[in-house]
Amino acid sequence: MKDKMDKKPTITTSCSHTSLQIFHGARKEGMKSIGIAVGERPRVYEAFPLARPDDFFLIGDYKDLLKQEVAEALEDKGCVIIPHGSFVEYMGSKNFKKIRIPVYGNKAVLDWESDRKKEREWLEGAGLKMPRDIKSLSDIDGPVIVKYGGAKGGKGFFIAKSREEVENRLNGKREYIMQEFIPGTRFYFHYFYSPIRRDGYRVAEGSLQLLSIDRRVESNIDEIYRLGSISELQERGESPGFTVTGNINLVLRESLLGRVLDMGARTIEESLRLFGGLWGPFCLETVIDKDLNIYVFEISARIVAGTNIAVPESPYSAYIEPGLTTGRRIAQELKYAYKNRVLDRILS
Amino acid sequence: MKDKMDKKPTITTSCSHTSLQIFHGARKEGMKSIGIAVGERPRVYEAFPLARPDDFFLIGDYKDLLKQEVAEALEDKGCVIIPHGSFVEYMGSKNFKKIRIPVYGNKAVLDWESDRKKEREWLEGAGLKMPRDIKSLSDIDGPVIVKYGGAKGGKGFFIAKSREEVENRLNGKREYIMQEFIPGTRFYFHYFYSPIRRDGYRVAEGSLQLLSIDRRVESNIDEIYRLGSISELQERGESPGFTVTGNINLVLRESLLGRVLDMGARTIEESLRLFGGLWGPFCLETVIDKDLNIYVFEISARIVAGTNIAVPESPYSAYIEPGLTTGRRIAQELKYAYKNRVLDRILS
Amino acid sequence: MKDKMDKKPTITTSCSHTSLQIFHGARKEGMKSIGIAVGERPRVYEAFPLARPDDFFLIGDYKDLLKQEVAEALEDKGCVIIPHGSFVEYMGSKNFKKIRIPVYGNKAVLDWESDRKKEREWLEGAGLKMPRDIKSLSDIDGPVIVKYGGAKGGKGFFIAKSREEVENRLNGKREYIMQEFIPGTRFYFHYFYSPIRRDGYRVAEGSLQLLSIDRRVESNIDEIYRLGSISELQERGESPGFTVTGNINLVLRESLLGRVLDMGARTIEESLRLFGGLWGPFCLETVIDKDLNIYVFEISARIVAGTNIAVPESPYSAYIEPGLTTGRRIAQELKYAYKNRVLDRILS
Repeated sequence: MKDKMDKKPTITTSCSHTSLQIFHGARKEGMKSIGIAVGERPRVYEAFPLARPDDFFLIGDYKDLLKQEVAEALEDKGCVIIPHGSFVEYMGSKNFKKIRIPVYGNKAVLDWESDRKKEREWLEGAGLKMPRDIKSLSDIDGPVIVKYGGAKGGKGFFIAKSREEVENRLNGKREYIMQEFIPGTRFYFHYFYSPIRRDGYRVAEGSLQLLSIDRRVESNIDEIYRLGSISELQERGESPGFTVTGNINLVLRESLLGRVLDMGARTIEESLRLFGGLWGPFCLETVIDKDLNIYVFEISARIVAGTNIAVPESPYSAYIEPGLTTGRRIAQELKYAYKNRVLDRILS
Repeated sequence: MKDKMDKKPTITTSCSHTSLQIFHGARKEGMKSIGIAVGERPRVYEAFPLARPDDFFLIGDYKDLLKQEVAEALEDKGCVIIPHGSFVEYMGSKNFKKIRIPVYGNKAVLDWESDRKKEREWLEGAGLKMPRDIKSLSDIDGPVIVKYGGAKGGKGFFIAKSREEVENRLNGKREYIMQEFIPGTRFYFHYFYSPIRRDGYRVAEGSLQLLSIDRRVESNIDEIYRLGSISELQERGESPGFTVTGNINLVLRESLLGRVLDMGARTIEESLRLFGGLWGPFCLETVIDKDLNIYVFEISARIVAGTNIAVPESPYSAYIEPGLTTGRRIAQELKYAYKNRVLDRILS
Repeated sequence: MKDKMDKKPTITTSCSHTSLQIFHGARKEGMKSIGIAVGERPRVYEAFPLARPDDFFLIGDYKDLLKQEVAEALEDKGCVIIPHGSFVEYMGSKNFKKIRIPVYGNKAVLDWESDRKKEREWLEGAGLKMPRDIKSLSDIDGPVIVKYGGAKGGKGFFIAKSREEVENRLNGKREYIMQEFIPGTRFYFHYFYSPIRRDGYRVAEGSLQLLSIDRRVESNIDEIYRLGSISELQERGESPGFTVTGNINLVLRESLLGRVLDMGARTIEESLRLFGGLWGPFCLETVIDKDLNIYVFEISARIVAGTNIAVPESPYSAYIEPGLTTGRRIAQELKYAYKNRVLDRILS
């Protein structure tokens, strides 16, 4: 890959998820950008001129990116792929790992993030609190979420306040897993880790930032109170939905910030120990209970859609650099690595 | 009206609703502004010097605006009225249509917006999904909102989860209408359509923008969960309230933006077919269900109060022009139309 | 104290709560800042370079600030203490009043704010509406909050919809107070009063500003709807929590702004009558019911954590001065007072 690293990187991502933010960030840093789209040029960028990519690259299917001629065409343009949640989903995690085009970030993280057991090994290894997995009905001693196998995007989940309620509601013929439900308030922390710069919060050989915080808006669970309690609906045989429709902006109680930075730091350190490290943007998805315990229920090892609320800047990035977003921070990192000839250390 | 169009427009609106934003926008664009107020000069602008109008115009009653001498005085100052929700409400829709002073926007839209049937004809004609009107009890097959005739601002509404609940709770002596209740999360989209510029998302002869998104905060329904479920309260004979007290900022899942722009575009196209067009700021008020269907429950054909949260800019306007608000966009439009001698095309 | 006032003030506060904002504001105004911390230099500022204090001052315990040598060391550096909620809590209100180092604001306010009866005397004297204290069970005619004596941070609170529910749930062996529960939506108004400037909303000899508005995020009450209704949980013997974990940004219905400014003005006027005045940042914590009555349930007589959401500016401060936060406003006030040799009028 080394020889591909001589070109000035062209910020490249698929036209969804956080692409407006990524292209906008590239433009702010004077970097070229390319939007990958299936079929035809998406019209949405007409409405947002400062977030338009410099060019589009149309494909028939995401698997095309595995074809040699496509990879070569993109490499010729100096493309570096910025992965986001939809990009990985569109391609499938397996295919994504086969991409020959340089990808920003460590592809090895995919194995650790998509496997629930490995994710737990990683995060608990880093000393983070997680909601317990509950193996059997007799282990239930408080509220739980029950997730049927194959249920997607929250469909087929249900929430129960007790063992009795689980037993009443459970469809025993379907496979399911149970997880402790932590009553609290959700905070999604948007970190950025640079292994090549040392000007922020020092972690290992690099530096960590907290760029913003969001809370997801999920349909219909987040406005279900307008209709009645979730228990009433579940009793009527309806499942609440947990489909993400948007995000709101949040700040955290300042006295918890130290702990949150430390959590990010330990996540990085453990990733270095386990699989060569996580770098770039990542997100710890948490719920904070009434005793201020912070439980991590998931990690996203790349830019999350919640960062879109932190445009043009957040109450945290304003303390780092005016006008800083995660999208822009990515562009800064690639520019810095290019100038300092260390691109190979942040691509995979 | 043509001869009135030679003057540089003075941005004029009544001192409420979104007036701070409108005057602030005028100032940013170097336009003069006048605040219409009843009785005495409102003190609120003392606290917000950058959102102060250049001058006030005091009246005894909103109907005074229909008097010839008042109209002439305002016309002499080059006033163009920027209508907002409170302005139209203060005057009454009938009186508003009689105003001789130039109004920004198409007054013909009032007939289509205030009549529930015509509104539905327009929006469904544009291909938008709306919650169903429910004609009789036997048509109820899910949650509904029941609205008694003459109920204002959400008073006398109730929400029921089933036909049985409607029947138990209904006061049969009062007139009522029923509408399907869509469980989901609310998004209010703030569009701006210019029929005279072609530099955004192209629609008909003009261009469309999405400047921001908000969610209304309604009292007391939006914090009722702190007291108990809405069903419990309704059982105790209390009605929830839907009074708008404020707004919060939101971003939308990016993959839905294309659809949302298209919805705006079709709304404009249908308005052109039906009544000569809608232009300027408008808002589609929607709820997005767990399957990502977007239901429009209302259109506001002018600047909505939710745009106040998007000051000094929004995560969307930041992609168009730094520091852009709907208030400022209105001033830009009038300035552009004045300079290009096409004011007559955007006033009515 | 007069002779201490000749030095250019060094903005000094303890490293928590709103300290990032306060140090960031000082930096923006070209003022020096010092962060007081217990034990060791907190690492959190590494992550936020623009909000780092110029220096740290380490102590073993907050009571050290009462020691003469510590006070002298800080005075030598020109320190002016900016009190915030955590600072006062760490020291204890009694000790805080004994501090010899100059404090921004009027220490006399502590007596009026920490005593529930005096707080009510002050705010009702100012003509503000407050939720009623309920003396006996027979006075209950609607929803109430019951607070057991010694319950902290919302632990041991419960909410009841009726007298019957209170009677069923009450643990008669514990001391308790009851307060009317106002169903509505919460708004926390962030004011700033300057007794030495006359360029905003005129009050007494000075001027009042409204810099921002937030809503607290409280765990777990604010997401309890995801699990079930609060009544269901309380029936199961669980208490909801009201622990503040963060804040979101809000705007208020514009037509209420005049009333909100007037409420702030009357609070100041009454404070002048009662105890020599409140000045600097303060917050009225309110709930607005469905009839748009604004009930004040508490006053915070200094910078509140909710202002952290209004960084780098709010939809209101944008109308006053771009980039204005409460933290920055404090720095502006001290700079202005120093230049105009009236520091003695704002310290105590």
